[in-house]
Amino acid sequence: MNHHYKQTQAIPYYLCDRNHQLTLSMLVNLLIEVSENHSAGLGREETYMNERGISWIILRYEFDIKRMPEAKEEIEIETFATEYNKLFTYRTFIVRDDKNNPLIEVKATFALMDYKSRKIVRIPAVVVEPYEALFSKRIRREIKPHEIDREQMSEKNYTVRYFDIDTNQHVNNSKYIEWLLDCLSPTFLTTHEINHGIITFDKEVKEGNEVTSRVSKRIDDKIQTDHRIDVDGISHAKATFKWTENIIKEFNNGNDQ
Amino acid sequence: MNHHYKQTQAIPYYLCDRNHQLTLSMLVNLLIEVSENHSAGLGREETYMNERGISWIILRYEFDIKRMPEAKEEIEIETFATEYNKLFTYRTFIVRDDKNNPLIEVKATFALMDYKSRKIVRIPAVVVEPYEALFSKRIRREIKPHEIDREQMSEKNYTVRYFDIDTNQHVNNSKYIEWLLDCLSPTFLTTHEINHGIITFDKEVKEGNEVTSRVSKRIDDKIQTDHRIDVDGISHAKATFKWTENIIKEFNNGNDQ
Repeated sequence: MNHHYKQTQAIPYYLCDRNHQLTLSMLVNLLIEVSENHSAGLGREETYMNERGISWIILRYEFDIKRMPEAKEEIEIETFATEYNKLFTYRTFIVRDDKNNPLIEVKATFALMDYKSRKIVRIPAVVVEPYEALFSKRIRREIKPHEIDREQMSEKNYTVRYFDIDTNQHVNNSKYIEWLLDCLSPTFLTTHEINHGIITFDKEVKEGNEVTSRVSKRIDDKIQTDHRIDVDGISHAKATFKWTENIIKEFNNGNDQ
Repeated sequence: MNHHYKQTQAIPYYLCDRNHQLTLSMLVNLLIEVSENHSAGLGREETYMNERGISWIILRYEFDIKRMPEAKEEIEIETFATEYNKLFTYRTFIVRDDKNNPLIEVKATFALMDYKSRKIVRIPAVVVEPYEALFSKRIRREIKPHEIDREQMSEKNYTVRYFDIDTNQHVNNSKYIEWLLDCLSPTFLTTHEINHGIITFDKEVKEGNEVTSRVSKRIDDKIQTDHRIDVDGISHAKATFKWTENIIKEFNNGNDQ
């Protein structure tokens, strides 16, 4: 039914962290690259959108991560639009290893932004028709990130840099993820891996903005971290991640084989 | 004579700036990826080096840039080691467009670092032999970046982030370049392009370091910027770039065709 698109690629070292694993921030860049190639193949490339004065924006990601790909690993990314309604389209990405084992599943929610007013507009049927996604009147109720605990949060400040801004003239989504995660300690980050994550993008961060990234932790079956990115006290993004220790992950990998 | 290695690739959007051009920082990442693949093909991959407790470090880049590749453009990167002496090896990279026109030439100076002492060591012949580079007793005299003018410099401060650190446990060279350039104004950066650059890496920047990036401008035939990256007042990198305005570049491009 839905039009599927696949792309394979090797992971270059410069998209990886000190543990030789693809970073979440760079995973998101790879996904967007694949979804742009999908759209271009269907005649819905950037120029088609620009001519209509509209542009896709991402409102939400939900990640299920069995294992992050490693440097030099060959992966396949498959994507398809699952469903749309008057305001949103929903796209799924599946990342697989070279033996066809699924490593990551990502669900993304997109909306159309009017380039001038920078407001969300109704999705014209002609724009989404080639993706062969299901039309549904119903707008999905999606789980939101958990609110941060202000009693025990920690925070870091960031200034928007020149190279954070992408061709849409706002901060690239992958940079929000870098701010979200950098707020955690290096010790925690080197010894833990993300299994599940929800990120919502609430507002555009722009040139010259001063950003505060806040995080609080809680144990609820798994270790969870709740995050919030603020500019002038207003939320621009929120996230909740579930983590496991690396050592447990390694043990599980051993059992899977 | 020298063993040559070539690799082609399309430029993904996420390695580009707001002007849809590959960033200098990401160019350097692409070059290192290609030189690692070259080394791996000659049996001199990371594991070979790790077993000997040594690792290549980059001391200097010199860039000649006719035009930066654009998003989606297909490029070819060719590389070869030109020459070595007891302490340094010299490698050339040539970036070409899909019609075989040279766009960029980069000369890089490498040295071997002992992984434990983090000091530069003598290069064993066996390590460099497969590259078929010329041995020369003479150590090249290389042009250094111009000193900054402290009377009229501007500066910005940066804190090392978790994802700045690479698999060598120090800040990746591409991050120095981001700090060097981010210190210039967004207006200058959007309207100017680099034609020539020299960067020297003097010391490793590490986890937790607070970095100051300083820049001063001078007009000397072309617009030139001189840069310095300091930690605790000690230089960790220096650079000099020569610039032209975008509009002149566009005019020249038109004439070339």
